Amino acid sequence: MANITKKVSWSSRTDESGAAGEGTPLLNGSEQSRLTRQLSGGGTIFQIGRLSTVDLEEEITTEEDSARGRLKEIPHNEKLLSLKYESLDYDNIENQLFLEEERRMSFMSFRCLEISRWVVCGLIGFLTGLIACFIDIVVEQLAGIKYRVIKENIVKFTEAGGLSISLILWAVLNSSFVMLGAIIVAFFEPIAAGSGIPQIKCYLNGVKIPRVVRLKTLVVKVCGVICSVVGGLAVGKEGPMIHSGAVVAAGVSQGRSTSLKRDFKIFEYFRRDTEKRDFVSAGAAAGVSAAFGAPVGGVLFSLEEGASFWNQMLTWRIFFASMISTFTLNFFLSIYNKKPGELSNPGLINFGRFDSEKMEYNLYEIPLFIAMGALGGILGALFNVLNYWLTIFRIRYVHRPCLQVMEAMLVAAVTATVAFTMIYFSDDCQPLGPDHTEEYPLQLFCADGEYNSMATAFFNTPERSVRSLFHNQPGTYNPLTLGLFTLTYFFLACWTYGLSVSAGVFIPSLLIGAAWGRLCGILLASITSTNSVGTQQDLSVPVQTTWADPGKYALIGAAAQLGGIVRMTLSLTVIMVEATGNVTYGLPIMLVLMTAKIVGDYFQEGLYDIHIKLQSVPFLHWDAPATSHWLTAREVMSSPVTCLNRIEKVGTIVDTLSNTSTNHNGFPVVVQVSDSDEPAKLCGLILRSQLIVLLKHKVFVELAQSRLTQRKLQLKDFRDAYPRFPPIQSIHVSQDERECMMDLTEFMNPTPYTVPQDTSLPRVFKLFRALGLRHLVVVDDNRVVGLVTRKDLARYHLGKHGLEELHLAQT
Amino acid sequence: MANITKKVSWSSRTDESGAAGEGTPLLNGSEQSRLTRQLSGGGTIFQIGRLSTVDLEEEITTEEDSARGRLKEIPHNEKLLSLKYESLDYDNIENQLFLEEERRMSFMSFRCLEISRWVVCGLIGFLTGLIACFIDIVVEQLAGIKYRVIKENIVKFTEAGGLSISLILWAVLNSSFVMLGAIIVAFFEPIAAGSGIPQIKCYLNGVKIPRVVRLKTLVVKVCGVICSVVGGLAVGKEGPMIHSGAVVAAGVSQGRSTSLKRDFKIFEYFRRDTEKRDFVSAGAAAGVSAAFGAPVGGVLFSLEEGASFWNQMLTWRIFFASMISTFTLNFFLSIYNKKPGELSNPGLINFGRFDSEKMEYNLYEIPLFIAMGALGGILGALFNVLNYWLTIFRIRYVHRPCLQVMEAMLVAAVTATVAFTMIYFSDDCQPLGPDHTEEYPLQLFCADGEYNSMATAFFNTPERSVRSLFHNQPGTYNPLTLGLFTLTYFFLACWTYGLSVSAGVFIPSLLIGAAWGRLCGILLASITSTNSVGTQQDLSVPVQTTWADPGKYALIGAAAQLGGIVRMTLSLTVIMVEATGNVTYGLPIMLVLMTAKIVGDYFQEGLYDIHIKLQSVPFLHWDAPATSHWLTAREVMSSPVTCLNRIEKVGTIVDTLSNTSTNHNGFPVVVQVSDSDEPAKLCGLILRSQLIVLLKHKVFVELAQSRLTQRKLQLKDFRDAYPRFPPIQSIHVSQDERECMMDLTEFMNPTPYTVPQDTSLPRVFKLFRALGLRHLVVVDDNRVVGLVTRKDLARYHLGKHGLEELHLAQT
Repeated sequence: MANITKKVSWSSRTDESGAAGEGTPLLNGSEQSRLTRQLSGGGTIFQIGRLSTVDLEEEITTEEDSARGRLKEIPHNEKLLSLKYESLDYDNIENQLFLEEERRMSFMSFRCLEISRWVVCGLIGFLTGLIACFIDIVVEQLAGIKYRVIKENIVKFTEAGGLSISLILWAVLNSSFVMLGAIIVAFFEPIAAGSGIPQIKCYLNGVKIPRVVRLKTLVVKVCGVICSVVGGLAVGKEGPMIHSGAVVAAGVSQGRSTSLKRDFKIFEYFRRDTEKRDFVSAGAAAGVSAAFGAPVGGVLFSLEEGASFWNQMLTWRIFFASMISTFTLNFFLSIYNKKPGELSNPGLINFGRFDSEKMEYNLYEIPLFIAMGALGGILGALFNVLNYWLTIFRIRYVHRPCLQVMEAMLVAAVTATVAFTMIYFSDDCQPLGPDHTEEYPLQLFCADGEYNSMATAFFNTPERSVRSLFHNQPGTYNPLTLGLFTLTYFFLACWTYGLSVSAGVFIPSLLIGAAWGRLCGILLASITSTNSVGTQQDLSVPVQTTWADPGKYALIGAAAQLGGIVRMTLSLTVIMVEATGNVTYGLPIMLVLMTAKIVGDYFQEGLYDIHIKLQSVPFLHWDAPATSHWLTAREVMSSPVTCLNRIEKVGTIVDTLSNTSTNHNGFPVVVQVSDSDEPAKLCGLILRSQLIVLLKHKVFVELAQSRLTQRKLQLKDFRDAYPRFPPIQSIHVSQDERECMMDLTEFMNPTPYTVPQDTSLPRVFKLFRALGLRHLVVVDDNRVVGLVTRKDLARYHLGKHGLEELHLAQT
Repeated sequence: MANITKKVSWSSRTDESGAAGEGTPLLNGSEQSRLTRQLSGGGTIFQIGRLSTVDLEEEITTEEDSARGRLKEIPHNEKLLSLKYESLDYDNIENQLFLEEERRMSFMSFRCLEISRWVVCGLIGFLTGLIACFIDIVVEQLAGIKYRVIKENIVKFTEAGGLSISLILWAVLNSSFVMLGAIIVAFFEPIAAGSGIPQIKCYLNGVKIPRVVRLKTLVVKVCGVICSVVGGLAVGKEGPMIHSGAVVAAGVSQGRSTSLKRDFKIFEYFRRDTEKRDFVSAGAAAGVSAAFGAPVGGVLFSLEEGASFWNQMLTWRIFFASMISTFTLNFFLSIYNKKPGELSNPGLINFGRFDSEKMEYNLYEIPLFIAMGALGGILGALFNVLNYWLTIFRIRYVHRPCLQVMEAMLVAAVTATVAFTMIYFSDDCQPLGPDHTEEYPLQLFCADGEYNSMATAFFNTPERSVRSLFHNQPGTYNPLTLGLFTLTYFFLACWTYGLSVSAGVFIPSLLIGAAWGRLCGILLASITSTNSVGTQQDLSVPVQTTWADPGKYALIGAAAQLGGIVRMTLSLTVIMVEATGNVTYGLPIMLVLMTAKIVGDYFQEGLYDIHIKLQSVPFLHWDAPATSHWLTAREVMSSPVTCLNRIEKVGTIVDTLSNTSTNHNGFPVVVQVSDSDEPAKLCGLILRSQLIVLLKHKVFVELAQSRLTQRKLQLKDFRDAYPRFPPIQSIHVSQDERECMMDLTEFMNPTPYTVPQDTSLPRVFKLFRALGLRHLVVVDDNRVVGLVTRKDLARYHLGKHGLEELHLAQT
């Protein structure tokens, strides 16, 4: 089980992470660790025992036993919490070096820093916009070529017979594009699969997902998304833009690229997790902004899905990045469309212009909208449940890259086949209007001057199909076409999400929703208009469209379906409003999204949360579980904690870091009071990464005395090593050096946040979440008794039967 | 000086607050306190001394001397920090009672609580919408009557001569309305003056502004705003809606009204600062939403101006309240307008429909927009500077209620006179179109079938004037009219803001901006169209309107001016976009607001911040000042701290609470270790309000033993006393009882957040702000050495010469 999971997880390159040695801290609850945790107590490592009553100990033993029993038969891994994910340090490490630097800085330097933050955000927006533009143009060109080739082929064979050749051509073209996309994703960068939104959510939450913000990931993502959209899968190119924006942000803000081995020596101040996170939020917002032409929606997305601490200045910078991103995309697309300077074409997806006069809504439609929202919630939950089962299936059986590529190709071929079959058997012919929005109308078996209506939905990029559903004249689609389309596309999209290709779920969701929404509109109109309903002809005649405009219902349906799947409310409302360019629908869209969320949450979580859970990511939600006041820091914390002395022997440090069974990442630093019988007092906290840098630079007390000329270690040395600190194995320490001493005073964080043992879990949680902590020291009268990390908190969640505890696993 | 300030401050009822005894904690930096702080050390109160080096002591002494010198000649009070403002407790007091209650609650109870939160938010939205509706209808009716009366009068006297009688009528009518409004505000509830936005900002920031969320304030506010708008002042009714929403929220969520002496015994769980704050944010958002028809803007306003900790669920509830509010207003207004069910009329101010086809913008207009943004920033800063001087003048000389009423009446009369003069001397006649939007067209000296253009701007409610400026045909106003109007209205609005009437600054700002924006548009069009510019006739001919549509520039100007005055960006962008109902202008409005903010901030702060500063409110900004890494908790904290024993003598507690010179609000609770030579250890924190309740219920150890039947004190007793805890003076403690002991164990917060002395100010600040703390205990090895409160942090701010320290004052 464990091995299988590893293969398809977000951080599947076990070899790399293994070699990197950025291992995992072991916490209580993990059975294995408990057995091996008892260090031999060599040197001066303090083993501060667990302080608890006898009752508690007993309880824990019972838990352990049952856990051991359960571990063997865990059906799938959302009941586990992976130990392989590191945390990010969203709390500044205010050690002496840092404080000295800050104190040296004048007011002007802070001004300059602030300006450079704005510049970086501008750059992020600009580059994200450019990438969006690139994807859009390439997809449009390639898809244009593909559809033209197939259309010619179909036209050729419609009369001559032998349309199966067209089908094969279509399927082969699709599969080859998808194969390309799947190969680069599966073999080169598995983390680039999917929309990337769950990963960015985790990153902003404070979980380090390996390689998620690397340049290579970006390249694979961009190429992958082009291939999968051109390959005709039921996917969108909007989700991946968010991931792309985040990568751009992480790259630009660091002023260097490790992949390209270039260091521009700029923005060195920003080389730490806190600053990087801020830029990544801006990048994600810029991505949303570029994808939907929704700068405000982008900001809200970043805030709703990511940030926990709201800062006005940061928000404005994020907003600025979003604006620049939309603006850039707009500008370059306007040049591409040969209307330079016309900025009314924002976003990769453009819902087209909704005319507010024609499409007003009335009070009595509100209940209808709410009902549609509920339907969207149910359908969304169904989608999520199906996708959840599918994902578990994939985790178990489809874990080898070549299998993943084959599955992707299969889906591509099936999509083409289904589409072709649907078009082939559809007899829904519509007259070609003078102002039709169809790019590639297929005549097929229709009369001259008519086109196949099913083909407008299937034989098109999903973005265009959505727009047709929103804006085509009433009567363009007949109910049967829409119903069949919804049904097939629903399952196709569900199958597609989670494939090893870069692709988003936004557009397919919108498309499904638009289809059944339009269907609702048509049915409503037909029910209310005349009593002589029945024949298909009646339904498609554009007579009774005064109030139930199908386009309006398509929009509502789209919102409902998307809301039911991803369960965002505020940001999604704004995104939809900005994408439609019309505020009139704000209120109904809100109602619909809210209903969809409430209904959907009743059955199943949102799609992104499901995938985060299935990866066993230690994700911290907004609040501690409601009924967790029972728990206190004493029960939650990991103990015993490996502490270091303020002046510690090098050998001890090396041994502690090398101990693979207990590779913690943060070590409380303690100082022994002269009175030797008293326990040691907490005086700081030091990180593994800092110790590694110290060892690498051999900052030993003895050496400092002998080699006086030696340069003092600076913050720059830590920044240069960030974020890929070498593993302890790569650092050679001689036997002589092992006897040296290291003075940690300057490098440790002298003021770590602490809580007493009796602090309740919600209180610990709030502190942890609000400040973005990585380690929280639990003290009893200033003696270290435990350490709370992200995994200790993420373990507890509200299940169906109240508070549940997840198991920790090394997968 | 101190007395004068007291008179016009937000909490001017010194008698009441004095009697309430919820006095002010004395902190270091305040000279007076320093002299009287040395308690006689009676009983077991611990006086834990200031731990610092000799250098520091010396520094402080010097500071003190200079402070003493400066205190005498402080010109105005924004260099002071008032000690009379209490903090709110946005951190839950997790004492044993609370934890026991939480632990007793089942999962279902939490569900019910969550549902009742939603219900409360719905109610808040509904009531806020109703109030907005009420204000709107009453204002419209009364203003209608007023303008019709005056118009008839003017028509009567235009031919007959003697228009001065009309002027007098107009001035008298205005003055009497304004007098009414000013009297209720000045004499009954001074806190209801102004827009209330600064007060709500402070409340959400954690400052307790006395009486700001009471029912009486709401009543005065609503009546006051009606009077001042009908009285023809240059004010809007939008700002006060935000305050009204907040009061509604505070009232509804508590399930009782102290003013009405009704307790509905519901929502008792919400009777604490944390929960109340969340509802007040929702109320403020609902207010914005009702005022501008901008639900998303409302949410963003609440977040941008208020909340520091972002919580997804909370945001959704706020959003829900906003939606309901707009919806309610919409619905009732549609009934009032005799189009029931038509929901396209959101908000008190409706910018009218912007047609996107006609009003597209082009790339080369962007620099123009940015320039207008800069102009808006400069004009806004000018407005703020003038208003700042005026406010200081008012603080010094216009502090008696009757003087305030007279000033308000004077402004009303002057406004009428100026308007009349402008209209009288204007020769800008325009033909009456068939589709004119003017409600009360004045013919005056114009030919038949024409009307006076100046009158559309002045002889109208400001909302209608804004709409005319946005939408009237090009050529409706000539440049001279607009220029004169801008000039006069600018000064009138500036004079009006800060009067003792309930009124907002949003609409006047929009109006000024719309006027000069439209002027810019006309001038631009005339410059670029023909070379033969010069005569006035040319300018007003609607020929060259293809690109420089004056309505578009009016909108941009309005955004620029408003942004320049209030300095909001994200929320204001969304509000403007939602109010125009068109997303097309999103990008230009953002750019304009951002520019206006940057330019304006260069000169002067935003209007609300100025007024907050002038009230010496200890307002915590988002971050600690950039260059404050020099400071540590040791320098910042107040010390010595009055500590209480865990089992403390009643007499000591009463004495401590009664000591008016040191009326702290939070007391660290310590426990003496058996080893008597060691200093006492921190074991909790208890609030003044809790001690008062304990004393009131005589929870003494001795009594509990003698009277076994006595009911145990419950959380309910604290909730019943919340938020108006009686003063210590009202509690009678007999001499016998003084000898009793009180056990604080159950009631104190056993896990207060603590920091070590060396923690840097930014770190302390972040902890304080992120968690909404009121007291932060500074410890050295678990011994209390100091206490950091809001005022200790708010003292430091970035001035022109780097970090500055404000002085604390009892005003």
